[in-house]
Amino acid sequence: MDPELEVRAKAEKGKLASRVLAKLSTKTRNEALLAMADGLEAQSQAIIEQNEADMKAFAQESPSSPLLDRLMLNRQRIKQMAESMRQVAALPDPIGEVVEGWKTVHGLEISKVRVPFGLVAIIYEARPDVTADAASLCIKSGNCVLLRGGSEAIRSNKAIAKVLVDSSKHLIPPDSIQVIETTDRRAVNAILKAKGLIDLLIPRGGASLINFVTENSKVPVIETGVGNCHVYIDDSAKLEMASDIIYNAKVQRPAVCNAAKKLLIHSSVAPTYLPEIAKRLRGSGVILKGCQRVRSLIKDVAEATEEDWYTEFLDMTLAVKIVDSVDEAIEHINKYGSKHSEAIVTENYERAQAFLNGVDAAVVYVNASTRFTDGFQFGLGAEIGISTQKLHARGPMSLRELTTTKYLVRGQGQVRN
Amino acid sequence: MDPELEVRAKAEKGKLASRVLAKLSTKTRNEALLAMADGLEAQSQAIIEQNEADMKAFAQESPSSPLLDRLMLNRQRIKQMAESMRQVAALPDPIGEVVEGWKTVHGLEISKVRVPFGLVAIIYEARPDVTADAASLCIKSGNCVLLRGGSEAIRSNKAIAKVLVDSSKHLIPPDSIQVIETTDRRAVNAILKAKGLIDLLIPRGGASLINFVTENSKVPVIETGVGNCHVYIDDSAKLEMASDIIYNAKVQRPAVCNAAKKLLIHSSVAPTYLPEIAKRLRGSGVILKGCQRVRSLIKDVAEATEEDWYTEFLDMTLAVKIVDSVDEAIEHINKYGSKHSEAIVTENYERAQAFLNGVDAAVVYVNASTRFTDGFQFGLGAEIGISTQKLHARGPMSLRELTTTKYLVRGQGQVRN
Repeated sequence: MDPELEVRAKAEKGKLASRVLAKLSTKTRNEALLAMADGLEAQSQAIIEQNEADMKAFAQESPSSPLLDRLMLNRQRIKQMAESMRQVAALPDPIGEVVEGWKTVHGLEISKVRVPFGLVAIIYEARPDVTADAASLCIKSGNCVLLRGGSEAIRSNKAIAKVLVDSSKHLIPPDSIQVIETTDRRAVNAILKAKGLIDLLIPRGGASLINFVTENSKVPVIETGVGNCHVYIDDSAKLEMASDIIYNAKVQRPAVCNAAKKLLIHSSVAPTYLPEIAKRLRGSGVILKGCQRVRSLIKDVAEATEEDWYTEFLDMTLAVKIVDSVDEAIEHINKYGSKHSEAIVTENYERAQAFLNGVDAAVVYVNASTRFTDGFQFGLGAEIGISTQKLHARGPMSLRELTTTKYLVRGQGQVRN
Repeated sequence: MDPELEVRAKAEKGKLASRVLAKLSTKTRNEALLAMADGLEAQSQAIIEQNEADMKAFAQESPSSPLLDRLMLNRQRIKQMAESMRQVAALPDPIGEVVEGWKTVHGLEISKVRVPFGLVAIIYEARPDVTADAASLCIKSGNCVLLRGGSEAIRSNKAIAKVLVDSSKHLIPPDSIQVIETTDRRAVNAILKAKGLIDLLIPRGGASLINFVTENSKVPVIETGVGNCHVYIDDSAKLEMASDIIYNAKVQRPAVCNAAKKLLIHSSVAPTYLPEIAKRLRGSGVILKGCQRVRSLIKDVAEATEEDWYTEFLDMTLAVKIVDSVDEAIEHINKYGSKHSEAIVTENYERAQAFLNGVDAAVVYVNASTRFTDGFQFGLGAEIGISTQKLHARGPMSLRELTTTKYLVRGQGQVRN
């Protein structure tokens, strides 16, 4: 089928279904999620067979790709998908919440209530678990979803979506969850153009996907994910705490957006502290790059280029810079950072406040690892992504961020003078 | 100067200034607004002279344009601009509000606080009062502003901005308020491309401007304004109330976005009610179009085309359709409406609820005129526009909608397991 036509047809069907879904009760939507979770477990064999076909095809092309592990599904992982769907079902329903309300001087009763967006599209890469995850968060928040995953996972995604739809279609419209089946790239362009049908588009993946989407979409987008995160170690820091924080932020899971990519150190502690922390980080395989001052204090450090300061290293690389003040740290972060997560380690109250107020990012930390930027770690119970833009949602996005509001105004015949 | 270069240079200066402005106290920003208001009154002669030059040039091109009145400034109008600036100064500061906060299981103290966007750009048409208005709302909410008004008002806009900057530069950075001086259309394109510098773009104006901006911008946009608003008169309505509401919604100020453009009438009251309301509306110069059923009930009604149902008539035209149920009314509105303001007139509780829940629009009314969709009428104290999109803000936008949030996280050395 022509990719444009497929996207258009499915967006239209999803839009129609969204009107029905929006009217269903919390109870019905939760029952649908529980039925989908049961379906995933009961039909796991069928999903695994399709996933094996995806794995085989992908392994032939890229036998040693690290993506193979992300692509792989087994009984255990499908059980996890089902389990997290049950957890989403147990969360409070964001829909219907009265955010605020008041009576105007003319006697109009105004309430601002939370309602679904309608049809949400998600563009993502080769992670079939996102198919179930995104579907569950969208259905919970009363939205229909149009899923466009990576071509490597197409068989798995289709199989998962089929199970989700089959096991819930007695409760919610079958078009509530749809997968774009063509792997033609033109489908992405068609999604970006479906203004008026798709109410919200969330790209999940690497910087190039996200940039392409935000730069070309006519549909409203929430930009997620790119994290060029810094840890700044002030000269007043407890240095042991500082080491634990940068070690955790860099080493615990280096390939994710909330991992540290840069280390800034105050110049008055750098001469003694830098060799020590460098040793500990290198002991775990971290590869250091640095500014001139760093390179004059420790050996075997490649020069960090201007481009490096802008780069979200998703491997073991860490670029280190020596700064002379918290203000210089803030300025550097505001210039090169990606507005994701930034941390200061300090015992100085004034500098902590200056950093919190001065750094322009979704999440700003004092004395904690940047790795906490996550819907679950924040205690939100779920996460559809981490917004690095300022419009609508900023930081970890959960169910509430998948809603919009509507003003309901009840009058008794008021007209305007 | 090359339009691209001018926009780029001013966006960079505005971005830098926004870091300074964001740190200033509520008191300083309010003092700046009061100084600007005084400046406008003191310098009104200089503004009027420039405005006269704009008027003269425009009148030569389009001697009888209704835009002439919108373009015109006199002492009284400048006094009004100053007065509304003082009112904005008196409003509560949205910045610094802790929207929510909690402690996580790991002991992290999280607060979500309201912060400025940074640099806001406004693209608008030939209304020089918007220059002062937009500047005042942006400064109040801690944002710098880049203004691109219609070329017809360029001398007036420059004169107003000069007064605003001159009278406040001892309090706020002079680059906080900047006007794009070139009237070359390429400046608009340069604004749309300034991702990373401009944090938010708000187009104010007609449908073609707004569509062009939303479809081409790489900068986050809030879509404002187009209002293809409906009033639906149910068969249970108090017909006198219904007449007052549609009359007010259509006639009181037909050229604005929250005026009614369409009337839907339940078929069981149409035979008696339609001739009566048609007479009243026509008596005030309303020109009726209609569906076949309308045309069979009253005379001299042109057929409303498919395109008419989508059109935001900004004149005295009103298209009328007869429907058989509230559901048909909802379906029609969701198909043809622009998601702005929609009203039902009814005494039936169930249908009122069905309409409130079923209509997908920023503001949905029962028994009141659509003309109340306005920041001032809502009691918000100010208005930068009316959002018809679902992302970030929906309905009348005031100071709070000119802010974003930031998570501040205070720890005691927490790292992630």
